[in-house]
Amino acid sequence: MSTTTSPGRPRIVIIGCGFGGLEAARKLQSAEVDVTVVDKTNHHLFQPLLYQVATAGLAAPSIAAPVRLLFRRQPNVTTLLGEVTQIDPAAHEVHLADGTRLAWDHLIVAAGATHSYFGNDGWARMAPGLKTLADAFEIRRRVLMSFEAAEVEPDPVRRRALLTFAVIGAGPTGVEMAGTLAEIARHTLEGEFRRIDPGSAEVLLIEGGARVLQAMPESLSQRALEQLQKLGVQVRLNARVTSIDEKGLQVESPFSDGGAGTGSHRIDCHCVIWAAGVAASPLGRLLGAATGAETDRAGRVKVLPDLSLPGHPDISVVGDLAAAMSHRPGKEPKPVPGVSPGAKQMGRAAAANVLRRIAGKKTVPFRYRDYGNLATIGRNSAVVDLGTPFGPLRFSGRLAWLFWLFAHAYFLIGFRNRIVVLMDWASAYWSFQRHARVVAEVRGKGES
Amino acid sequence: MSTTTSPGRPRIVIIGCGFGGLEAARKLQSAEVDVTVVDKTNHHLFQPLLYQVATAGLAAPSIAAPVRLLFRRQPNVTTLLGEVTQIDPAAHEVHLADGTRLAWDHLIVAAGATHSYFGNDGWARMAPGLKTLADAFEIRRRVLMSFEAAEVEPDPVRRRALLTFAVIGAGPTGVEMAGTLAEIARHTLEGEFRRIDPGSAEVLLIEGGARVLQAMPESLSQRALEQLQKLGVQVRLNARVTSIDEKGLQVESPFSDGGAGTGSHRIDCHCVIWAAGVAASPLGRLLGAATGAETDRAGRVKVLPDLSLPGHPDISVVGDLAAAMSHRPGKEPKPVPGVSPGAKQMGRAAAANVLRRIAGKKTVPFRYRDYGNLATIGRNSAVVDLGTPFGPLRFSGRLAWLFWLFAHAYFLIGFRNRIVVLMDWASAYWSFQRHARVVAEVRGKGES
Repeated sequence: MSTTTSPGRPRIVIIGCGFGGLEAARKLQSAEVDVTVVDKTNHHLFQPLLYQVATAGLAAPSIAAPVRLLFRRQPNVTTLLGEVTQIDPAAHEVHLADGTRLAWDHLIVAAGATHSYFGNDGWARMAPGLKTLADAFEIRRRVLMSFEAAEVEPDPVRRRALLTFAVIGAGPTGVEMAGTLAEIARHTLEGEFRRIDPGSAEVLLIEGGARVLQAMPESLSQRALEQLQKLGVQVRLNARVTSIDEKGLQVESPFSDGGAGTGSHRIDCHCVIWAAGVAASPLGRLLGAATGAETDRAGRVKVLPDLSLPGHPDISVVGDLAAAMSHRPGKEPKPVPGVSPGAKQMGRAAAANVLRRIAGKKTVPFRYRDYGNLATIGRNSAVVDLGTPFGPLRFSGRLAWLFWLFAHAYFLIGFRNRIVVLMDWASAYWSFQRHARVVAEVRGKGES
Repeated sequence: MSTTTSPGRPRIVIIGCGFGGLEAARKLQSAEVDVTVVDKTNHHLFQPLLYQVATAGLAAPSIAAPVRLLFRRQPNVTTLLGEVTQIDPAAHEVHLADGTRLAWDHLIVAAGATHSYFGNDGWARMAPGLKTLADAFEIRRRVLMSFEAAEVEPDPVRRRALLTFAVIGAGPTGVEMAGTLAEIARHTLEGEFRRIDPGSAEVLLIEGGARVLQAMPESLSQRALEQLQKLGVQVRLNARVTSIDEKGLQVESPFSDGGAGTGSHRIDCHCVIWAAGVAASPLGRLLGAATGAETDRAGRVKVLPDLSLPGHPDISVVGDLAAAMSHRPGKEPKPVPGVSPGAKQMGRAAAANVLRRIAGKKTVPFRYRDYGNLATIGRNSAVVDLGTPFGPLRFSGRLAWLFWLFAHAYFLIGFRNRIVVLMDWASAYWSFQRHARVVAEVRGKGES
């Protein structure tokens, strides 16, 4: 039994073990501090590939690493599985749902984000989002079961609705989901059904804005749109979802004949996937209320340049929970985008500032280094926008897709996972198959 | 869209796509028949390795293949996902839960087995068995969460109970589970906890009979017992579980001091795994009631030598659902053991007899070919009992373990799965790690 809590050593509590929390803890590796990492799951999730679990391309363990295992060789870290219910800045304590209280000298909050249904929380049941492994399993189940139900549905109208898939929101996750769903319908399931033609399924990508991948330069958005259409995805831009029920959704979108104004359209479909809104973890507002820190509309906490909170230099917020700015000497501060490199860099920066403060030094403002942006669309198609010393480098198509593929494999945690994921991709590429097309029974029902 | 139902071709319905159903359908590959395979899950499960999913050594997709994919290149098979609720021999129809009725000229029932709690169905909630993927996930969750709960439990008595694992039943599954749990506690989790020593966990294997692996020759049972003890498993033989509740179980077992009689012992533990009783699928009794066929105590249907039912030559029962005998010319018939080679051979034999009947030929009695019996215990340890023309070949230890390993990899479906499973085993062997230590959130709870 190893225990590492030593009296007198500064206690650092990190809430959340996503990209931000993990990098913060790693940065503290050789410091004379006691770190406690609290997460409400037992694993760190490589979220950029979560859509592959949802679309049956990867098994969950390929993109999830046990938190304990990650810190096995870092003896100054204690891992706790638990849900944070309150943060008490005056008592310097974090409260967990099971009653445990954790005392800290420095707190790093990296609790991440969840879905936002823009006030329509009732939509969650009909249109699951994609943030956790459980979400991914649920989407996998709905997608595969829609084809199964269509195969035995005698009514052609209901069958058509079962073979219609709607993805709401054309950010990176929505684009990946829609592209992969089209691929599953056209290729993966080919020849496996006897009554329906899975290739006749319709995949709709519904976006409120004027283009897909709005974080990308306009030329790449255009490329992505073309690649999506080539894969068979029907992209509806400037389209606003006004209601979702069990049998479909209502969308307000421009008239397709190019006439002025918009019309309200009904789309009958059973499988709706929500990739539109992101909201900060509810811990953001709790923290705001407890410390007086401001939160923005998405519930993110506004932080000082060094990522700490106004009046609370011992509390830092990083990752998707932080409304942070990047500070480059002599330039206007710019908002840090909500991407994984941003979370990782903030995690490291916050930990470094904690160490500076412990050493009695001045903290430094956070500066985000933007190495570029990439998104995949489907088989052989992706868009890449890299920042180089010579200016931006933009490309799309098969080369971009290979770049995306190796970049993601590179950042995956664990040698085994990298090998298995590359193997799965290679076999999926050559065979058009997806090996994780498995839906577990609901327990207690599958047993008879 | 491909459809293959042709009027006039004999319709064969196969219920269940385990080993028996799968082999029956494959045997019909080139026959001029229309086959419908109904299963209540979307996957064929390689059950001999299910305990590895439960103990976080393998991901579910490694041992589960989509039923549709398996029959993709067999155009005379239609796959249906559905639950059979009734069999009507007079109307020649199978009823599904969704109201569908399937008409058949020949029916092969391969619905398999489930757990039996010997009349104590209330124990199911406290002591899950291992038959489905959902069962495996539940056991994985309970095992891993017990260590997590122990880490934060301040009370030493409750902590001890959280670190006590009881496996009930020392057949192959119970032995594998107990051996692997001991390995997880001693090796896999080593160095990952700060307050508890996972190596101090107790793994109990509770068996009602006088030895472990009773289907094996006595000398191999003894070897298995020694190997279990070497791994740190406490084996309690001649011990009968009399009650299970949320905090532990009550066991009647001989006095350990060697005195006469037995005593009742209380074992405090939170994680109980049921590997004791197997009962045929409830379809067995339904079928018995509908056809007048006899069922045995475990609910298995007694079949004629050619695997069909008395008075119903158009209905065959195979696999764990059948109480079948092996018929060797000139010898006494012997019961077919409930192992996967038995189910596979019965599936093929039943399908061959259906084809004979269609061709107007005489059916032939089933003969089980026993190639041997093997069971693994844990790292480097297994027992093997092979039948050879020169008499039985029995061995144990590391060589038996390697034999077990390659035999199981060989019978796994799919090239990719074989490679990934061998890779996972190799990496587990060298690193003592288990890569699937991932517990998904309960949906709706993990989202905040």
